[in-house]
Amino acid sequence: MASNGDGDGDGYHGSGMDTVRVLIASPLESELVERIRAVDPRLNVTYRPDLVGAARFPADHHPSPGRSAQQEVEWAGLLAEAEVLFDVDRPNVREGLLERAPRLRWVQATSSGVGEWVNQLGLQATDVAVTNAAAIHAVPLAEFAVLAMLYFAKRMPLVNADRAARRWELFASDVVRGKTVGVVGLGGVGREIARLAHALGMRVIGVRRHPTPADASIEAVYGPDNLVRVLESSDYVVLIAPQTPETDSMLGERELRAMRPGSVLINIARGSLVDETALERALRDGHLAGAALDVFRTEPLPPDSPFWDFPNVLITPHSMSTAVSENALLTDLFCDNLSRYLAGQPLRNLIDKARGY
Amino acid sequence: MASNGDGDGDGYHGSGMDTVRVLIASPLESELVERIRAVDPRLNVTYRPDLVGAARFPADHHPSPGRSAQQEVEWAGLLAEAEVLFDVDRPNVREGLLERAPRLRWVQATSSGVGEWVNQLGLQATDVAVTNAAAIHAVPLAEFAVLAMLYFAKRMPLVNADRAARRWELFASDVVRGKTVGVVGLGGVGREIARLAHALGMRVIGVRRHPTPADASIEAVYGPDNLVRVLESSDYVVLIAPQTPETDSMLGERELRAMRPGSVLINIARGSLVDETALERALRDGHLAGAALDVFRTEPLPPDSPFWDFPNVLITPHSMSTAVSENALLTDLFCDNLSRYLAGQPLRNLIDKARGY
Repeated sequence: MASNGDGDGDGYHGSGMDTVRVLIASPLESELVERIRAVDPRLNVTYRPDLVGAARFPADHHPSPGRSAQQEVEWAGLLAEAEVLFDVDRPNVREGLLERAPRLRWVQATSSGVGEWVNQLGLQATDVAVTNAAAIHAVPLAEFAVLAMLYFAKRMPLVNADRAARRWELFASDVVRGKTVGVVGLGGVGREIARLAHALGMRVIGVRRHPTPADASIEAVYGPDNLVRVLESSDYVVLIAPQTPETDSMLGERELRAMRPGSVLINIARGSLVDETALERALRDGHLAGAALDVFRTEPLPPDSPFWDFPNVLITPHSMSTAVSENALLTDLFCDNLSRYLAGQPLRNLIDKARGY
Repeated sequence: MASNGDGDGDGYHGSGMDTVRVLIASPLESELVERIRAVDPRLNVTYRPDLVGAARFPADHHPSPGRSAQQEVEWAGLLAEAEVLFDVDRPNVREGLLERAPRLRWVQATSSGVGEWVNQLGLQATDVAVTNAAAIHAVPLAEFAVLAMLYFAKRMPLVNADRAARRWELFASDVVRGKTVGVVGLGGVGREIARLAHALGMRVIGVRRHPTPADASIEAVYGPDNLVRVLESSDYVVLIAPQTPETDSMLGERELRAMRPGSVLINIARGSLVDETALERALRDGHLAGAALDVFRTEPLPPDSPFWDFPNVLITPHSMSTAVSENALLTDLFCDNLSRYLAGQPLRNLIDKARGY
């Protein structure tokens, strides 16, 4: 596979090469492209906005490129030469990326949960390195988790309804201080959620695949076998575990019923973690006070989805990881990783493709 | 005025008295009344739910008592004997409370901003002590300030609109980390807001009548003369200054225009602090990205108020200080203050009636 002939064994550093061809396959601001070019003279960085497509909003990584037949040929030529990809353009997210990009050694992803994506690209059993954007999304996602908890504590569904009726009716609401949040998944995002929740005076418990000594902000960490114990002790449950075969439907009927009556579910991981039919039931009969759902099994969420009907479900269109500052941070990470790549040093945010995260 | 004859000079402790008559003039849970009774055998605590009226929601302090003529006579009799009042019932919030309650020495209020209320009661120039509930409301109000900042950073008005249309459209939003919040009023609530905002990674500056060395979470504190300097440096401005003649319309046309284009105003103080016509203009022409308003000059906010028309104005009905846990905390404070009162020690949360806070 390594057709550049440097014969290096670990498959993702290129210190012996003359030129590293980097192809940017996601919309990126021109000043950020210049920063990438400036990392090292050995880099040959190609960015073709005309072939990538236009961002519909800041940090949009997946526009439809709408390439003509001739443009497709151009793009195929660039892909065939690329050693490093910054993201993968939407039409190429399918099995066999390596057939189109035989010199590929490393993909820098622009999202955090890339396990399923790596499989779709057919990269799982290859030695192509994949780095994700985990640290980039920690702050926006953790801030959203805080927003979601406060949203229900302060009864925003009631505020919305009263507002629609221009009704001024006093009410009492809750404080999150003293409440318990169960964070399912204690990677970079989960630990940032824990830190913020702790600062708000909340009790934080969590679930991690390999329970390790907890941060100071986390009272107790349990393994996946003790998920129910965390669920039944939490006023708010935040899902931020990776999408893997083990986490598929990890919140089913039994787990949702183990949650405290009147508690709130926040899913910022992937839709696949939740049995949506069971969740719908738990919302309909009032077992849960509400849910904040950034992700669903089917996205876009179809207009006839029952979740739109629940005033106590906050629906955000898989956007809460996307901050307007994202591309600048992604570029910071990518530039640092390019230096490491050229120097043969370990890449940051390198995922274990077998585990999927 | 002091008709109990103990002749004590400071006017609000009663260690020389046999019995202190305490009248609870706000709805209160019976177990909390029992806790008050248990403070000291010298207390004679009267709580008559039939005369006070029924709470419409937890920690409702101002129901309409709906007393019959005979009940009014009963209530007048209790008021005439009361030395300590826990709140003042709504019909008696008018000039001349002392004429109806000539033995009154101390009122424990159930709200934080009581300057105007003290004037309405005609207590300003008397030696009746008034203690407020400042510390009680710090947590719910500070949590709401955080919610309000995140609400606009994460574009909840857009989320609401898309939801109404069942529209799934990706977007980028902002992070509050790294942004600046200007806290106008650095009493207990303002400092708690500063603490939480700092934990979120925000830069905190503030305005205080008497600028004092700042908490570690606050980068700089300015006097009221430098209000504009704070406004023009802030992405979010939180008003939590007391209602006094000096703060009336402190945010007028000039000050609102000094705020950063695209910034957000959060008012959890009193409606009188803001020139509402100027605010309406600043929202209408897009100078401000939004506002979270818990308080207005006219409450209830009339159905024809233009503020209802703005999708980017979060309207909460003067309720964000009211937590379901409030009465328990008020009772903690009141019990502690009763012990202090009996022991002739300084009361907590004693307001300076001349300053109004």
